[in-house]
Amino acid sequence: MFELLKTDPSSKARVGRLTTAHGVVDTPVFMSVGTQGSVKALDPRELRELGTQIILGNTYHLHIRPGMEIIRAAGGLHQFINWPDPILTDSGGFQVFSLATIRKIQAHGVEFRSHLDGSLLFLGPKEAMGIQRELGSDIAMVFDDCPPHTSTPREMRAAVERTMRWARECREQPRAPGQMVFGIIQGGIDATLREECAKALVALEFDGYAIGGVSVGEPEPEMMRAVEITEPFMPAKQPRYAMGLGTPAQLVELVARGVDMFDCVLPTRVARNGTRKGSISIKAGAFKADFRPIEESCDCFACRNFTRAYLRHLLNVGEILGLRMLSVHNTRMFVKVMEEVRAAILNGTFAEYRRDFAANYVPTQKVLLARAAAADR
Amino acid sequence: MFELLKTDPSSKARVGRLTTAHGVVDTPVFMSVGTQGSVKALDPRELRELGTQIILGNTYHLHIRPGMEIIRAAGGLHQFINWPDPILTDSGGFQVFSLATIRKIQAHGVEFRSHLDGSLLFLGPKEAMGIQRELGSDIAMVFDDCPPHTSTPREMRAAVERTMRWARECREQPRAPGQMVFGIIQGGIDATLREECAKALVALEFDGYAIGGVSVGEPEPEMMRAVEITEPFMPAKQPRYAMGLGTPAQLVELVARGVDMFDCVLPTRVARNGTRKGSISIKAGAFKADFRPIEESCDCFACRNFTRAYLRHLLNVGEILGLRMLSVHNTRMFVKVMEEVRAAILNGTFAEYRRDFAANYVPTQKVLLARAAAADR
Repeated sequence: MFELLKTDPSSKARVGRLTTAHGVVDTPVFMSVGTQGSVKALDPRELRELGTQIILGNTYHLHIRPGMEIIRAAGGLHQFINWPDPILTDSGGFQVFSLATIRKIQAHGVEFRSHLDGSLLFLGPKEAMGIQRELGSDIAMVFDDCPPHTSTPREMRAAVERTMRWARECREQPRAPGQMVFGIIQGGIDATLREECAKALVALEFDGYAIGGVSVGEPEPEMMRAVEITEPFMPAKQPRYAMGLGTPAQLVELVARGVDMFDCVLPTRVARNGTRKGSISIKAGAFKADFRPIEESCDCFACRNFTRAYLRHLLNVGEILGLRMLSVHNTRMFVKVMEEVRAAILNGTFAEYRRDFAANYVPTQKVLLARAAAADR
Repeated sequence: MFELLKTDPSSKARVGRLTTAHGVVDTPVFMSVGTQGSVKALDPRELRELGTQIILGNTYHLHIRPGMEIIRAAGGLHQFINWPDPILTDSGGFQVFSLATIRKIQAHGVEFRSHLDGSLLFLGPKEAMGIQRELGSDIAMVFDDCPPHTSTPREMRAAVERTMRWARECREQPRAPGQMVFGIIQGGIDATLREECAKALVALEFDGYAIGGVSVGEPEPEMMRAVEITEPFMPAKQPRYAMGLGTPAQLVELVARGVDMFDCVLPTRVARNGTRKGSISIKAGAFKADFRPIEESCDCFACRNFTRAYLRHLLNVGEILGLRMLSVHNTRMFVKVMEEVRAAILNGTFAEYRRDFAANYVPTQKVLLARAAAADR
C-alpha cells in the first residue's frame, strides 16, 4: 500500500506513494484538518483546487456531533461530507486528554465528560476503532494516551504503557473494508521510552506509524528531538506521520528527518497570512492601501483575485470572504511547499531546496520569541 | 441604454435590457447586496455561477470603511472588490436615516454620527454623488430622505419636498464616465405625494427611477399599494427599481406591477433556506437525517453537493461552510425566479407562471403571521 519511490542522499527525506481505498496520496503530504467534517471555511472544490490530497476527520468531535447514527445513515464520512478522496481519522485520544474533563482512566479506555454539554462518555480502543470503522476512513489511528509534555517520568511511562496496551487492543478490532490502521508512538523526549513504544507497536504490524505527543506545547527543539529519537525505530518501508505539526519551515525540516505525513490547523485557524517572507497580519494598517496579493508568487485563488487592501477591509468589517481567502491562501502555501519538496527530492535537489527554504523563510514572531527564550535557558 | 424587449399582455410585466458601462443586465433582475464591498460569504466566481448580473454597493458604509482614499487608490469599486460586472450603488440616504444618529438635517444634507464610532459626518446630494462618482458605479442613486412608514402626513410631505430638492442637486453633479443616475420616488402610501414626487423627478430626466420608502417595516399590502400608486408615473421606457424588496413571491407580483429591478438582503442575511414549498429552518431536528438537498429541483452548488443533514450539522457546530451554502442556495433561488420570469414573459406564459408560482409558493411563517394580523385589523 506504501511504495517508496526515492530517498534523498543528503538526508532522511523520501518520496512515496500511499494507495488508499479512496485514492492515491503522494508523500510527503500535508493533510488539511476537517475536525468536525469541514475544513474550516473551505468547500471540497476549493480543497481540490488547492491540491489537497487527503483530509482529516476527528472521532471525538464527530462522535459527539452529529453522532454516529447520522453518519452511518449517510453511508459513512466520505458520503456525509461529500469528500470522495482519502480521509484519515484521528482516534479521539488527543481530544479526550486535552479537551474533555477526564473522570476516570480505566483499563480499557477513558470515562470523560463532553467538553460541550458535560455528558458522560466513554472512549477506549474498542470504541474508537468502532467509530472509525463506521466513519469508513481510509486511515484509522489507534486510541492512545497523549500526556502533556510537562509530565513526570513516571506519568510518561504510564502513558506509554497504556498506549502500547491499547494499541494491541486496537489492532484486534475489525476494520472497514480497505481501511488502514496506524500505530501512535508516545514517549516524550525520553529516547528509551520512544524506542520501547516504537518496537512494541512495530511488532503489532500496523500499516503505518505516527509520532504522537508532539505539538503539545513543547518548544521546537524538544519537538525535533522527539522526532529524531523515534524515527530510527519506524520501518522505512511504511509511512511515517508526525501528528499536529507544524509551520512550513518545520515541515521541511521534518521531511529531512524522514517524516512523510503532516497535519496542522495553522492554515485554517489563524487569521494571519503565511508568506515565505514571514507571517503577516493582514489587518495591520500598513496594508490598507497595499494592492499587491498576499504573496506575489502564489497561485491560489485569493492571490489571483484579491489585494491585501481588500482582504484587510473584509477582515476589518467582519466579512466571511476575508476569512475564506486567508484559509485558501494559507492552505495552498502548505500544500505547495510539499509539492516543491517532493519535486526537489525526485530531482535530487532537496539539500539545496532545504537550505534555501531555511535561509529565505522568516518565522513568525511567536516562533522567534520561543527560540530566543530557549536559547536563554 | 434601456431597451424594452417585450411587454406582457396580462399584466404590466416587461422584459428589458439595460446596457451599463460594465456590461448588459437582463431585466427583471435580482441584484445581490454587497453593502460593504462583499456579497455576504460569496466570492465573485460563485456569484457569476449563480447567474448574478449586477451587485449593490453602499455609499454610507464604504465611505466609512475602508474610506474613499483607499477605493480611489484601488482605481474604483469594481477594481477594489474584483467585480468587473455592473454595480449599482445606493446613495447612503437610507442608512443615514435608519442607522446613524442624526444631529441635524440641513438644507443641503444631513449631519450625523457614524453608527460605528460616533464620529461626526456629513452627507448630502453633493457628497453622495461625489462618493459614487469615485466609487465608479454603473448606476448611482440620488440622495433622498427616506422617512419611516409611521411618519405623520406633515413629516411625509417634508421628506418628499426634501427628496425632490436634493434630487435636483444630485442631477447637477458630475458623474463618472458612463455612469447612470436613478431618481428615488418617496411619498409613502399617499397617492398625491407619490405622483407629485414622481413628476418632479421625471422632469429632471434621470436614467431610471426607483420606488423608495418601501421595505421600511410596512405590511405587505401597504408595500404593494405604494408600488401601484407610483408606477403609473414612471416612464415606461426607463428601468424601474423597487428598493430593498422582497420575498420571491413578492418579486413575481412586483414584476406584474411593472417593476424591473430588485435588491434584497434576505438570501444572504438569514440562516434560513428558501424553497418553493416554504422557507425551512435547516437547523431543525427534523432534518438531522434528511439526505435530500435543500431543494430537489435546484441546480445550485449547495444542492448539487450537500444534503440537508450535512448543512444542518455545519450550522449546528458553527462551521462557515454552512452559512456559505445557505447564501449560495438562497441567492440562486432569487436569481432563478427572475430567469424564469423573463422566460415566461418572452414566451407569453407569464400569467400562467404567476398563477402557478402563487399557488405553489408557501410563504414564511413571518409573512403568514403578518398577513393574518393585517386581515384582523
